[in-house]
Amino acid sequence: MASKLREHILITVPVEVSEERLARLKAKFPNVEITIIPTPSPRSSEWKTFKQPGKEDYAGKTILVTLNVLPETMDDAPDLSHIHLCSSGTDHIMQHPVYTQSSVLMTTSRGIAGPPIAEWVIMTALVHWHKYNYARELHLQHQWNSGAQFMSCRDVVGQRIGIVGYGGIGRHVARIAKAMAMDVYAFTATPKETPEQRRDTGYIVPNTGDPDGSIPTKWFSGLDKPSFHEFLRQDLDIVVLCLPLTPQSRHILSKAEFEILSSRKTFVSNISRGEIIDQPALITALETGQLRGAALDVTDPEPLPADSPLWKAPNIIISPHMSGFVANYGERVIDVLELNLEKKSRGEPMVNVIQRGKGY
Amino acid sequence: MASKLREHILITVPVEVSEERLARLKAKFPNVEITIIPTPSPRSSEWKTFKQPGKEDYAGKTILVTLNVLPETMDDAPDLSHIHLCSSGTDHIMQHPVYTQSSVLMTTSRGIAGPPIAEWVIMTALVHWHKYNYARELHLQHQWNSGAQFMSCRDVVGQRIGIVGYGGIGRHVARIAKAMAMDVYAFTATPKETPEQRRDTGYIVPNTGDPDGSIPTKWFSGLDKPSFHEFLRQDLDIVVLCLPLTPQSRHILSKAEFEILSSRKTFVSNISRGEIIDQPALITALETGQLRGAALDVTDPEPLPADSPLWKAPNIIISPHMSGFVANYGERVIDVLELNLEKKSRGEPMVNVIQRGKGY
Repeated sequence: MASKLREHILITVPVEVSEERLARLKAKFPNVEITIIPTPSPRSSEWKTFKQPGKEDYAGKTILVTLNVLPETMDDAPDLSHIHLCSSGTDHIMQHPVYTQSSVLMTTSRGIAGPPIAEWVIMTALVHWHKYNYARELHLQHQWNSGAQFMSCRDVVGQRIGIVGYGGIGRHVARIAKAMAMDVYAFTATPKETPEQRRDTGYIVPNTGDPDGSIPTKWFSGLDKPSFHEFLRQDLDIVVLCLPLTPQSRHILSKAEFEILSSRKTFVSNISRGEIIDQPALITALETGQLRGAALDVTDPEPLPADSPLWKAPNIIISPHMSGFVANYGERVIDVLELNLEKKSRGEPMVNVIQRGKGY
Repeated sequence: MASKLREHILITVPVEVSEERLARLKAKFPNVEITIIPTPSPRSSEWKTFKQPGKEDYAGKTILVTLNVLPETMDDAPDLSHIHLCSSGTDHIMQHPVYTQSSVLMTTSRGIAGPPIAEWVIMTALVHWHKYNYARELHLQHQWNSGAQFMSCRDVVGQRIGIVGYGGIGRHVARIAKAMAMDVYAFTATPKETPEQRRDTGYIVPNTGDPDGSIPTKWFSGLDKPSFHEFLRQDLDIVVLCLPLTPQSRHILSKAEFEILSSRKTFVSNISRGEIIDQPALITALETGQLRGAALDVTDPEPLPADSPLWKAPNIIISPHMSGFVANYGERVIDVLELNLEKKSRGEPMVNVIQRGKGY
């Protein structure tokens, strides 16, 4: 059923959005106009010569879909009533006048990176337990060898996975882990005791995640070390870090924590930020066998220098902060926007609304 | 609750069974005695000098747990009433007099390899879609490069997976695939129309698989080519082959089938037997881009010769028939036996009973 909602959307994102996806949006909202300004990535060389949109570009536009392209102040975009970010976070625009000096409605695309990043976590854990790197090495050498090395493979059935930070990514890891017959424990900063507290209130890619928070068999919480250490003492076969980087979470895994994890020889997976882990301590923990392995999509610093000893740590998997990359990222940005347009036309509250005080 | 069942079990398997697992069995069945004869793998050099158990070894034993060690005839083991194989199949003993000339109760361990092999299928599919081989290459070169290559990664959300052969392995693939928000289609030799037909009647590792057959959104069946081609025309992103090798299933994927799959550029996964696929046709399909990739844990022949062109086919993943290898395989063999002892002591029919006429 077509909605009568009248908007003019300006899209300035450095990711591809297909004609077909926009056509579906317009079919649902026939009175919505769309203008696209092709926009380079801020990491690309084209970015330096990119001509920022001016007053004339913003004139008449009511919604801006963007990563980091913004009017200098809201005076330059008097018709704008909603800014939809294609990113999950807001750190890159938190100093911008539009963020600090206006109260224009802003939403993020938080949640859409859940599936690819969760799949990366599952993939790298399986790579570890099924010795895929060794199989790959044999392949490259054209060698068939079904010998003793593979006899120590493990499947994950009955393993316990501890998920630190139970947001969109952690919840989808939990969903897949449960299907694989793993036992899921969750750790959150604040206690999640009621069904209401356990619910995921952000955007969820359909059929993914743990909307009700019903998957974990045990919940732990706290911002203090003793609470976190209690969690780490739960015989966890895998620990996944998917919490935001904050002063409290910096180096949340360090010498003392690896000491605790050594009794189970836990496998550690990090898709948060490199600084979440004390990296020299991690290298030592791997070298001394306190941990059986680690998978990192993030490092400290990034890019990781070629001479970093991290590359050579035993049983480590490193990828260059790519776990969230998917070809259809732009489509999913529009999925979130579309859901919010539907909510707007029904007079319901939108999802992923930024609460400026909280920073997300 | 301890059972009064009285048995004497002789264990002659080439896989490790921990003391701890046997202690748990004895705790449940205090009147069960266990004798172990350390047994080498038939693929090992020790096998040639292995002294086969004789009449004196079988005397008094009521249950034999074995891979391929058997009394010459049942006359040599007059007390034996049950042979439990640690393998899923029976092909390696189907010519043996104990199989052909006796009617001693035989059970298999069919079902226990479901989880590791299903995890291999999921892992290799994720390796493909998330370009893990490229990430690994960068890692080995100590290179950080989060560039354009990863922009074409895909997660599997919304993809359609076609599972050919819906047994223990296929069902666990389905379970994980569904949790990952994939759409599951199943193909079976005989029609599965009623809930009864869709049920898994074999041994199932707890919390795995699809016991009721409730996961597939669509079922297909048939032993003829047109039926199978109809299935292949369903816009399948992934096709997994986990059916047994039979005269009908030999080369079930060949030139004509790759032609059909080319419209979607399907990813093909094979954990069945190498001969299920027409291998030269597969190489051509990969070289011409009819398929986007393939994952093979089995090849034709095995071992795959170092100079086989298969190793160099584009976008191929090969592992040396190791997907079922897990360190706790022996424990799971005992899990099946324990379940059957429980059933026996309750007077219920056992699981995984071999029906000699059918060969499984």
